[in-house]
Amino acid sequence: MKLHGYFRSSAAFRVRIALNLKKLDYDTALVNLQAGEQVLAQYRAVNPQGRVPALEIDGRVLVQSLAIIEYLDETIAEPPLLPRDAPGRARVRALANIIACDIHPLNNLAVLNYLKNKLEVDQDKRTEWYRHWVKQGFDAIEPLLAGSTDTGRFCHGDRPGLADICLVPQVFNAQRFDCDLAPYPTICRIFDTCMALDAFERAQPSRQPDAPAPA
Amino acid sequence: MKLHGYFRSSAAFRVRIALNLKKLDYDTALVNLQAGEQVLAQYRAVNPQGRVPALEIDGRVLVQSLAIIEYLDETIAEPPLLPRDAPGRARVRALANIIACDIHPLNNLAVLNYLKNKLEVDQDKRTEWYRHWVKQGFDAIEPLLAGSTDTGRFCHGDRPGLADICLVPQVFNAQRFDCDLAPYPTICRIFDTCMALDAFERAQPSRQPDAPAPA
Repeated sequence: MKLHGYFRSSAAFRVRIALNLKKLDYDTALVNLQAGEQVLAQYRAVNPQGRVPALEIDGRVLVQSLAIIEYLDETIAEPPLLPRDAPGRARVRALANIIACDIHPLNNLAVLNYLKNKLEVDQDKRTEWYRHWVKQGFDAIEPLLAGSTDTGRFCHGDRPGLADICLVPQVFNAQRFDCDLAPYPTICRIFDTCMALDAFERAQPSRQPDAPAPA
Repeated sequence: MKLHGYFRSSAAFRVRIALNLKKLDYDTALVNLQAGEQVLAQYRAVNPQGRVPALEIDGRVLVQSLAIIEYLDETIAEPPLLPRDAPGRARVRALANIIACDIHPLNNLAVLNYLKNKLEVDQDKRTEWYRHWVKQGFDAIEPLLAGSTDTGRFCHGDRPGLADICLVPQVFNAQRFDCDLAPYPTICRIFDTCMALDAFERAQPSRQPDAPAPA
């Protein structure tokens, strides 16, 4: 099993957490997004879309982080990453999708580069853009978490799952862009609970082989 | 069952198709996105995120189009909207997510308004932005469809499912922004096949009660 990823990619981070939670060993292939390696022919041969992550597993290449994680959950029973009941699954997928569809796509490297290079948006306004979409998304997630008895130690009940897998990398990104997280005590509490787990801790960007050495 | 939506929302369009394919009758609550009704207290009481669609079903409110459609597929067996096998499901979800995560979020009304109002990006450059993300996404999808024996009359085999449900509204949007679809013959063929079906045809924006009268 081989994961094609990049230390700072949120989507690759999600898959790393899922692989760790499922206790799967995997090899890592590094794709340097800053250097543009994702659009070179060598990587396009793995994933024609030129995005990370891609997971080589069971003789196939799977792409798109949420599709990969659902596949892992369907093919490896324990521990489950989604609840058993349909309403619970809908809630967890909704939380995951608020992050994966409404926050992260606006703030990934390709978009920030477009703003900078094609639209000549300056650094301050790019940061404002970044924080805006984090705020919009977290403003939605916090009450969904704080206001529901379905929320436990984690986003849904007392074990980590798909929503937590999406939430943690997004909080990492928010911290990197100095977003104000004070309005989101439930998000922060769940983040801390997750990061106390080895599966999350080992998956974080700074623990990856392509991360820069600490200053 | 009540769907809160807006005629031109791609995400609501997806859910309308899924409801039609499942042969479910539903009431419609109109939320005028152009008028900003989605952020008013009345709608926030339904969906605190202030986005459409939201589906009232089985005594709950479900949000996020993909989570809603997965719920419908899990609770109403026929016709299935995802394949039975895990690799097939991963393929369909990947296609759906390329649209739902990599194209649509960049091009929705909230983003276009931010470009216009906050970043003062002019109409031509907004159109260029729009077409750029459609091209990036469709450039990935076309070979995934054209190059796979899993592709049939529809994105996956010979019956419509989740990938088609995401693809059709995205093609509608691409047409509205005059994107060049000539490089995407497989996408266009599947689009035409879908639109020949009543479930897709009845779901299209111009057939909704809040659509403007034809000129």
